Amino acid sequence: MQCFEIQGGFGLDHLVSAERDVPSPGPGQIRLRMRAASLNYRDYLMVNGLYNPKQPLPLIPCSDGIGIVEAVGPDVSRVAVGDRVATNFAQSWIAGKPTREKVRSTLGGPIDGTLAEFMVLDQAGVSPVPDYLTDVEAATLPCAALTAWSALTVYGEVRAGDTVLVQGTGGVSLFALQLARALGARVIITSSKDEKLERARKLGAWQTINYVDDPEWGRTAAKLTGGTGVDHVIDVGGGGTLEQSCRAVKIGGHISLIGVLGGSKVSLALTPILMKNVRVQGILVGSQESFESMCQAFEWHKIRPMVDRIFPFDETREAFLYLSAGRHLGKICIEI
Amino acid sequence: MQCFEIQGGFGLDHLVSAERDVPSPGPGQIRLRMRAASLNYRDYLMVNGLYNPKQPLPLIPCSDGIGIVEAVGPDVSRVAVGDRVATNFAQSWIAGKPTREKVRSTLGGPIDGTLAEFMVLDQAGVSPVPDYLTDVEAATLPCAALTAWSALTVYGEVRAGDTVLVQGTGGVSLFALQLARALGARVIITSSKDEKLERARKLGAWQTINYVDDPEWGRTAAKLTGGTGVDHVIDVGGGGTLEQSCRAVKIGGHISLIGVLGGSKVSLALTPILMKNVRVQGILVGSQESFESMCQAFEWHKIRPMVDRIFPFDETREAFLYLSAGRHLGKICIEI
Amino acid sequence: MQCFEIQGGFGLDHLVSAERDVPSPGPGQIRLRMRAASLNYRDYLMVNGLYNPKQPLPLIPCSDGIGIVEAVGPDVSRVAVGDRVATNFAQSWIAGKPTREKVRSTLGGPIDGTLAEFMVLDQAGVSPVPDYLTDVEAATLPCAALTAWSALTVYGEVRAGDTVLVQGTGGVSLFALQLARALGARVIITSSKDEKLERARKLGAWQTINYVDDPEWGRTAAKLTGGTGVDHVIDVGGGGTLEQSCRAVKIGGHISLIGVLGGSKVSLALTPILMKNVRVQGILVGSQESFESMCQAFEWHKIRPMVDRIFPFDETREAFLYLSAGRHLGKICIEI
Amino acid sequence: MQCFEIQGGFGLDHLVSAERDVPSPGPGQIRLRMRAASLNYRDYLMVNGLYNPKQPLPLIPCSDGIGIVEAVGPDVSRVAVGDRVATNFAQSWIAGKPTREKVRSTLGGPIDGTLAEFMVLDQAGVSPVPDYLTDVEAATLPCAALTAWSALTVYGEVRAGDTVLVQGTGGVSLFALQLARALGARVIITSSKDEKLERARKLGAWQTINYVDDPEWGRTAAKLTGGTGVDHVIDVGGGGTLEQSCRAVKIGGHISLIGVLGGSKVSLALTPILMKNVRVQGILVGSQESFESMCQAFEWHKIRPMVDRIFPFDETREAFLYLSAGRHLGKICIEI
Repeated sequence: MQCFEIQGGFGLDHLVSAERDVPSPGPGQIRLRMRAASLNYRDYLMVNGLYNPKQPLPLIPCSDGIGIVEAVGPDVSRVAVGDRVATNFAQSWIAGKPTREKVRSTLGGPIDGTLAEFMVLDQAGVSPVPDYLTDVEAATLPCAALTAWSALTVYGEVRAGDTVLVQGTGGVSLFALQLARALGARVIITSSKDEKLERARKLGAWQTINYVDDPEWGRTAAKLTGGTGVDHVIDVGGGGTLEQSCRAVKIGGHISLIGVLGGSKVSLALTPILMKNVRVQGILVGSQESFESMCQAFEWHKIRPMVDRIFPFDETREAFLYLSAGRHLGKICIEI
Repeated sequence: MQCFEIQGGFGLDHLVSAERDVPSPGPGQIRLRMRAASLNYRDYLMVNGLYNPKQPLPLIPCSDGIGIVEAVGPDVSRVAVGDRVATNFAQSWIAGKPTREKVRSTLGGPIDGTLAEFMVLDQAGVSPVPDYLTDVEAATLPCAALTAWSALTVYGEVRAGDTVLVQGTGGVSLFALQLARALGARVIITSSKDEKLERARKLGAWQTINYVDDPEWGRTAAKLTGGTGVDHVIDVGGGGTLEQSCRAVKIGGHISLIGVLGGSKVSLALTPILMKNVRVQGILVGSQESFESMCQAFEWHKIRPMVDRIFPFDETREAFLYLSAGRHLGKICIEI
Repeated sequence: MQCFEIQGGFGLDHLVSAERDVPSPGPGQIRLRMRAASLNYRDYLMVNGLYNPKQPLPLIPCSDGIGIVEAVGPDVSRVAVGDRVATNFAQSWIAGKPTREKVRSTLGGPIDGTLAEFMVLDQAGVSPVPDYLTDVEAATLPCAALTAWSALTVYGEVRAGDTVLVQGTGGVSLFALQLARALGARVIITSSKDEKLERARKLGAWQTINYVDDPEWGRTAAKLTGGTGVDHVIDVGGGGTLEQSCRAVKIGGHISLIGVLGGSKVSLALTPILMKNVRVQGILVGSQESFESMCQAFEWHKIRPMVDRIFPFDETREAFLYLSAGRHLGKICIEI
Repeated sequence: MQCFEIQGGFGLDHLVSAERDVPSPGPGQIRLRMRAASLNYRDYLMVNGLYNPKQPLPLIPCSDGIGIVEAVGPDVSRVAVGDRVATNFAQSWIAGKPTREKVRSTLGGPIDGTLAEFMVLDQAGVSPVPDYLTDVEAATLPCAALTAWSALTVYGEVRAGDTVLVQGTGGVSLFALQLARALGARVIITSSKDEKLERARKLGAWQTINYVDDPEWGRTAAKLTGGTGVDHVIDVGGGGTLEQSCRAVKIGGHISLIGVLGGSKVSLALTPILMKNVRVQGILVGSQESFESMCQAFEWHKIRPMVDRIFPFDETREAFLYLSAGRHLGKICIEI
C-alpha cells in the first residue's frame, strides 16, 4: 500500500511517498480503507521536527482521517465491515480525565498516522461519524473540532446565554464558533483580515473585531458585553494574546488555552488572573466519549465543517506547503 | 391600592378584591407598580388550600409578576426608579443550593404575592428582564420558566446533541421545549391531544407522541433515539408517568421530577432506577442567579413565551376558573 | 484447571466444581493465577437465577477477585508478569458515564467470573491494588467498595463537613462508612442489631440508630444534625426504606439507591422528593478510573476491609450458604 | 468607640487610633461588639496603598473579625443578640459565582473593616462559627482559611486519595495543609526554613521540601508521587513559582493561584500548561455558603488554626510591623 512517511530526518523534503505491506487485523482489531485525511498545525510541527525532535522515524504523519472498515479480526463487536469511522486522536483515551498513558497514544506521532491507504487499529480507537458529512468533511473532526468541543463543554460548560470570544479563524477557532452557536451562545470573533471576519459573520458570529485595527480588542470585547466581560475565551495565541484575553473575560470567567501561535513564552501579569478569579485551562484535544457526544451535536445541527481546499493523495506535500503559507480559511484535506 | 386576597378560608369564593394601603419602601427596599402577573398551578392549589392548609390568611396569592420600580428606600443601589423587573419566586434564594430558609421565602405564600397594584420588596428580590418581552410575557418567567431552566441546566447539564423528553404542554413543559432547543438539544414531546402536539411541533419539537394512543410512550421515545434512550426527561406526572419515564431514559440518564399531576403516590419498581443508573431529581424552581442566566438565554434567542390568554385585573377569579378547566396551551396572565 | 460453574439450571445445587482447560492469553490479554474471590449479594441472586433468568449456562459466577499476572500475550504494556491485580467488575467501563455496552461487560454474568484457578482477561480489565492489603482483603474491593465510592464521590461529592446516613452493615454499607470517614464526613449508621451498631462505632460511626427500636429513624437522623437533615443517604433497602430516607435527608440532599433489599416495588409519596429538591441516584458499581482513585484513598488511609469469614476454594458452596443465612458482618471471601 | 483608621495618606504612620460614634443598626442590620481580628497580607498592602491606591480615606482596615451580636434592627431573623459570628469577607457574596458587584463588597476596603470596637453590618454579612474555637482562633477564618477551602473544594474537588502540594507556611498555606488533610488528601509542603517544615510535619504534612536546598522542588514533588505528579498545587508565589508548579502537577491537574508573593509579573512557558492539560485557577477568597460549609469541616475535625501571636488592640501598629517582618508561622491576631 502507498503511504507518506517522514524518512531519514525532519523537514518537508523528508516527507516522501513509500510502500508498506497491507496490515492484517489481529484479535480486537480492524482494518480501515482510508478515504480522507485532514491536516492540523501539529502535523506541520511534527513533519518539521518541532513537535517532538526525538520522535523515531520513519513515521506516517497526521492524526485525522476517515476510513471504511474493510476487515475485522476475531472478537470485534464494536464496528462491522462497511462502517464508516473516524480515527480517534488519542487511541487509548476512551473517556474520563487525561493521563500520561492516554496522551501518549496519539496518531501521527508517536503512533503511525492516517496518511496511508490502509490502517489497522484497535476497534476501540475509532468512532462512527454522522452520515450527512462527506468523507473529507468528516476527516476534519478528530483533532480540531474535538479540541473546540472539549474547551466549550467538558471544561467550559458553555450554554445558551453565554458569550464566547474566539481568536482567529483557524481550524479550531471556526469549529469553536460553530459549536458555541449550536450550544446556544453568541460569539465574538477576532482576525487580522476583514474578509475573514466577513466569512465568520456568515457562519454566525455575533460581533467581529479586527485586532490589527484595534490592539485593545480585549477591552472592546468586554465593552460589547455591556462591561461585564465574556464568559469564555478560546485563546489560540498564548503569549501574544493572554493579556488581552484577561481583559476580555468576566470575573470568574474561563480562558481555554488552545495554542501558542503568538509565542509559547509569555510575560504575563498574574494579578488579573487572581483578582478576577479567572481560570486558564490548557486543552489537549479530548476523549472518545467527548468525540461521540460532539458528533451528535453535529448531527442535530447539521454543522458543515469549513473545508478550504482538498488535495489528492499524491499532492500531500503541496498540502503541507499550502498549510505553511497560512492563507487558508478552514481545513486543508487530502483525499486518499 | 387594590389587591386580591384569600380571605376567611380557602376556595375560589374566598378570593376577593380588597383594599390595602400603598406600602412604603424602607432601607434597601423598593416599591413596584405592578404591571402583570401570571398564574401557576401552585397558585391554584394555594387558593384552594391544597398547597399549604396552614397558610395564615389573608394572603395575596401568585408569585409571578412584573412591575416598574416606582420608589426606592435608602441604600438601594441594585435597581433604580423606572427599571422594569420581575419578582423572584424565592426572595432569599440568591444563588447556590436550596436551604430551608431559602425555600420558605416564596411569594404567593407564605409571603404576600403579586396580585396587587403595588408591592414593596427587598432590592435583592427582583431581577431585570429582557426588553423585547411584553409585560405579560415577562410575567410568565419567574416560576415556570425557571423551573424548566433549573432542570435542564443546573441539574441536567443538557446541551447540543442531547435528546430531551418533555411530558405534556403545560407551562413548565413548553418552556422546557423552548429552552432545550436554545441549549441545542432536540425534543420529544407527549400530549393527549393531537392539536397540542401540532402546536408543539411549531415551537420546535423534533418528535411528538400522543400518550393516549400510545400508552407505551416511554418505549416509543427510547426507540426514536435508536434504542439508546433519551438523555433527560421532564416528568410532570409523577405517579402516573415515572414508570414510562424510566423506560424512556438512557442508562445513566436524568429524570427531572417537576410535578405530580398524575398522582403524588407512586407504586414504582425501583430496579430500573438502580440497574440503569438513573437519577431522579426533584426540582423546586431555582435561584436568582439561575433566573438571570436564563434571561440571557431568552435574550440571545428571542424566545417568546406562549401566552394563552390575558385577563384584566378585575377578572382575576375568571382567570383561576379558566386555569382549573385545564384547556389552555401556554400561560394564563393578568394585566394589572 | 478447577473452577465452579452454574451447570444445567439455577440454584445452589447446580453450583458445582468443574474442570476446564487453562486458557491462553491472546494479543493484549493476560492470564491471572487467581488467589482470592469475594461474594456479593448479586452473586447469590445470579446462582439462584434471580438476577438474570436468561443467563446462558454454564457460567462461572462471581465478579470480585485477585490474581497474579502469570502470563501475558503480545502487545501487553499495562501490566507485567508478577503484578497483583484486581478484576474490574465491568470489563469495558474504563471511565466516564455508563452505557449499555459498558454495563453488559460484567464478570460473573454475562461473562465468566472469578471462581476459577486461572482467568484470561484483557489487560484493560484489571487494576493494581495497594500492597498493604492481603489477597483476601483486596478481593473485596471491585464491587462492594466501588459501589460505595461511586455513590459518595462521583455522584455525591461527599466531603469534610458533610453528614452521611448509612443503612445497615452489609458489605457496601461498611465500605460506605469507612470511605465517608476517609473523605472527612461523619456517619450515622442504622441496623437491627445492637452488636452490629457497636462494631460500626468501632469502625468510626459518629451515631447509630437501631431501626427496629426506632421505626422513625429518618426523623431521628435529621434531628441528630440539628434539624437540617443529612447531606447524603446510602439507601440499600429501596421499597422498605426510601420514605424514611426522604425524612432524613436535607433540602437539596442526595439519596444513593444502592439496593432493594427491602423490596423492589415501592409505594412512595413523591411530594417530599419534589418539595425538598431531593436527588435519588441509582448506583451501579462504577468505572475503572473510579476504582483506581478509590485504591489511592485506601492506600492513603490504610483502610482495612471488614472480612467476616474466609472459606477454602473447595467449600465455595458453604460460602454461598453462609451468605444466604445473612448473619455475617463484613465480606465473605474464598481463598483459591 | 475606638477604632484604627488609615488617615490622610497611606503608610503605617497613617494608621492611627481614632474615635467614632457607636453605630446603630437599621432594618435588617445588626451591631457587633468586636472581640478579635486577624491580619492578612492584603491588609498590609491596603495600609501601604499598594492594594488600591485610589481607596478613599479614612478607612478602617482588616476584613477578618469576630464579634458578639449586641443589638439588632427591625426584621432581623438570621441571628440573635448574644450570637458569636464572623464577618464575611465579601459582604454580598452569599453563594454562587463571583461577580463584579460581589467582589467589591469586601471589608477592610472599600468598606470599613474590623479594627473597631463596634461594627454595624447587614444580617446577611455574618456567619456563626464553631464553639470549640477561641475568639482569636475564629477570627483567622474569614479570609485565609476560606481561600484555602475554596481552592481545595469549590475549584479543586480535592478528596481522599489525592496529593496536594502546598507552597510555604503562610496563613493560607497552613490552612490548606490542615483542610486538605481533613478532606482525606496527603500533603507535600515547601519552605525555605527547616524549622517551619518541621512544624508543618507536626500539623500532618506527608512530605516536606526545602526549596532553597532544592530549587527543582517541582520535579521532586512529582517524583514523590511515583512520577505521576500531584493532583493539586496551592501556588502562593506566582511569578516565582509557577514554572515549578507546572513541573509538579500531574497531567490534567490543578494549580490554584492564591498569591503573587514571588512576583506578579511572570515569564512563563505556556507549552506545559497546554500539553499537560493543566488548569490554573485564580482564587479570590469565596462565598458565605463556602464559609459555612468550611466551618462544618472545622467542627467535624476540630481543626485548630495556627495562631503565631496575639496583640492587644492598642498595639495594632506593632502587629502590622510584625507582619511586615515576615518571621511569623501562622496568623497574627488582635484582641479588641
